[in-house]
Amino acid sequence: MAGNGFDGAKNDKRFVSEGALRKTVSAIFRKLDVPADEADEAADVLVMSDLRGVSSHGVSNMLRVYIEDYRSGKLKADSAWQIVSETPATAVIDAGQRLGIIMGPKAMRLAIDKAKTAGVGVVTMHNSGHLGAIGHHAMLAVPHDMVGVCMGTSHVSRLSVVPTFSAKAMFGTNPIAIAAPAGREAPFLFDAATSVVSVNKIRVALREGAPLPPGWVADPQGKPVTTAAAVEEPFLLLPLGGSREQGSHKGYGFMMMAEIMSTLLSGGIPHLMGDDSGAKSCFAAYRISAFTDVDRFKETMDGMLEKLRTTTPAAGQARVLYPGLPEHEETTKRRAHGIPLHKEVIEWFGKITSEMGLAPLRLMP
Amino acid sequence: MAGNGFDGAKNDKRFVSEGALRKTVSAIFRKLDVPADEADEAADVLVMSDLRGVSSHGVSNMLRVYIEDYRSGKLKADSAWQIVSETPATAVIDAGQRLGIIMGPKAMRLAIDKAKTAGVGVVTMHNSGHLGAIGHHAMLAVPHDMVGVCMGTSHVSRLSVVPTFSAKAMFGTNPIAIAAPAGREAPFLFDAATSVVSVNKIRVALREGAPLPPGWVADPQGKPVTTAAAVEEPFLLLPLGGSREQGSHKGYGFMMMAEIMSTLLSGGIPHLMGDDSGAKSCFAAYRISAFTDVDRFKETMDGMLEKLRTTTPAAGQARVLYPGLPEHEETTKRRAHGIPLHKEVIEWFGKITSEMGLAPLRLMP
Repeated sequence: MAGNGFDGAKNDKRFVSEGALRKTVSAIFRKLDVPADEADEAADVLVMSDLRGVSSHGVSNMLRVYIEDYRSGKLKADSAWQIVSETPATAVIDAGQRLGIIMGPKAMRLAIDKAKTAGVGVVTMHNSGHLGAIGHHAMLAVPHDMVGVCMGTSHVSRLSVVPTFSAKAMFGTNPIAIAAPAGREAPFLFDAATSVVSVNKIRVALREGAPLPPGWVADPQGKPVTTAAAVEEPFLLLPLGGSREQGSHKGYGFMMMAEIMSTLLSGGIPHLMGDDSGAKSCFAAYRISAFTDVDRFKETMDGMLEKLRTTTPAAGQARVLYPGLPEHEETTKRRAHGIPLHKEVIEWFGKITSEMGLAPLRLMP
Repeated sequence: MAGNGFDGAKNDKRFVSEGALRKTVSAIFRKLDVPADEADEAADVLVMSDLRGVSSHGVSNMLRVYIEDYRSGKLKADSAWQIVSETPATAVIDAGQRLGIIMGPKAMRLAIDKAKTAGVGVVTMHNSGHLGAIGHHAMLAVPHDMVGVCMGTSHVSRLSVVPTFSAKAMFGTNPIAIAAPAGREAPFLFDAATSVVSVNKIRVALREGAPLPPGWVADPQGKPVTTAAAVEEPFLLLPLGGSREQGSHKGYGFMMMAEIMSTLLSGGIPHLMGDDSGAKSCFAAYRISAFTDVDRFKETMDGMLEKLRTTTPAAGQARVLYPGLPEHEETTKRRAHGIPLHKEVIEWFGKITSEMGLAPLRLMP
């Protein structure tokens, strides 16, 4: 379910069309020497995240970070990447320090190609930049009538999540995503960090002066903070579950699942062992027709998703959602009415396009 | 991490050797017309669960349920099971109402065989009885230098877990397990229900008069119970995370991941749509050598697991664990000193062996 991340007052925002945003974002990547087709791909990943309402992984936060990393040489625009090992159903990619939102779709498409013949395809990747909203990559399998899975490690240089019973952060927020097609219903799309919440959500809560809910972070000694309290950066995030009593060992286990499938299975070294060679990831595509009848699968998905969507909501709730439904609804809405951008983001676009000698981002009237 | 489930006073328990327990349990299955090799397999799954300290899925709780189900005809001892579809890397099995702890290892071995040639093998299965502790099946991949994954749906006839914002239970406790080999360190073994806790844990807490921690169950209107409170069966379990604020939508997403990979991808119908044809499951084996060097993988696992095990513990904690470490330690201890059984369980064994005309379970002196 989308971390909307944009709730400012109306005066603080302006709207931009999908097309205008794609054009400007792609032009920015081209100016950074990214090949044209890959610049379009990068724009697609970012703009689709904004359309889905996942603004935390769209143009507002991430684009400026990517620009900085290209300029500092941390990201390579046009380096060689290669498939370092391969079998009929598997492959390992060395991404050559290229941006993850560009390499992720390549890796997923390779998994999809393998699934076309073998029934399933699994591709692991190391040495890439940030992967963006990994649910996007999983979703690429859906039009091929496949189930798509993507997992990854955080690319950030600082470990942020403390294992259950630990006083030290040992992992990033290692996300896991899965997407599956339906018929009439919106596709299933689940994409979640394996921590309780992200650093961004904590920053937003503290900035708004909201009491930080218990179970989001640990104190400097590693104990879960169980009362609303003021905390300071760097935050020690807790694994999904929060405390041991509430199942944090399960969040910790899912976090390690993502680490093993991404880092270990791509021949990489975990960040907690001192490695700093970039993000690691794992992409899997399961061709439905290799297992069962595609129409039956989709009809059953429709039946299940509709039943969830229309069941009796809990007291005080308007309705029951399923993963992918809010993203689908948000996409429809934003395609019709535009994507909201905060005025600070619009100012930043003004500055960067002017600096790069590009036409300004065209806003909706 | 093991749900030990056995904390009775010393007088309430007696010890039994692994060998004696295997012998009696296998003999019981044979008396139910289960073929000899499959009776040994069933005994292996149950006794290994007890050795690992996962008593909730060992002989104490489950064996009597299986016997009842064989006797009522719900489980078939010797029916035909079949592979209903197959590709080089995938297969779907109709288990023919056979017991899941017997069919699970067969499905996992088929996935392992496929991974030997294709690099990865994925097998889904429907129409089986209870799968036991699914981490056991995932672990079968480890001696083959593969990563093993198993997911499943609950076989129980009652739905127990409420999706986020729902007032009605829609899923079972759909577990997810993964196992991966290491070198010197204990293998990684993660096996968790996607609910916060199991029904059994709630029963134990209430029986002991302990205050039920907040976030374990929902009230009859679907709202998470956030204070220590008395609750009544049938319990409405919450997905991992507990409340929406604490990430229950993520537990709900993992729950649906298990449902889609197991039920939908085996051509089955979810329980929430009224189906009652038994458990569905998904088994995957990833051959490490198809991706990277096996020795490097194991050395890196050792480095990561040792670092986790030896890092600074949180205030008040003795040490940091990793998934699989307590199970490994418990197995070593119980192989040396025997498996503890509650006196009620020993009485039950006395009754059933006498009823079946079998030699009594031999206890340690």
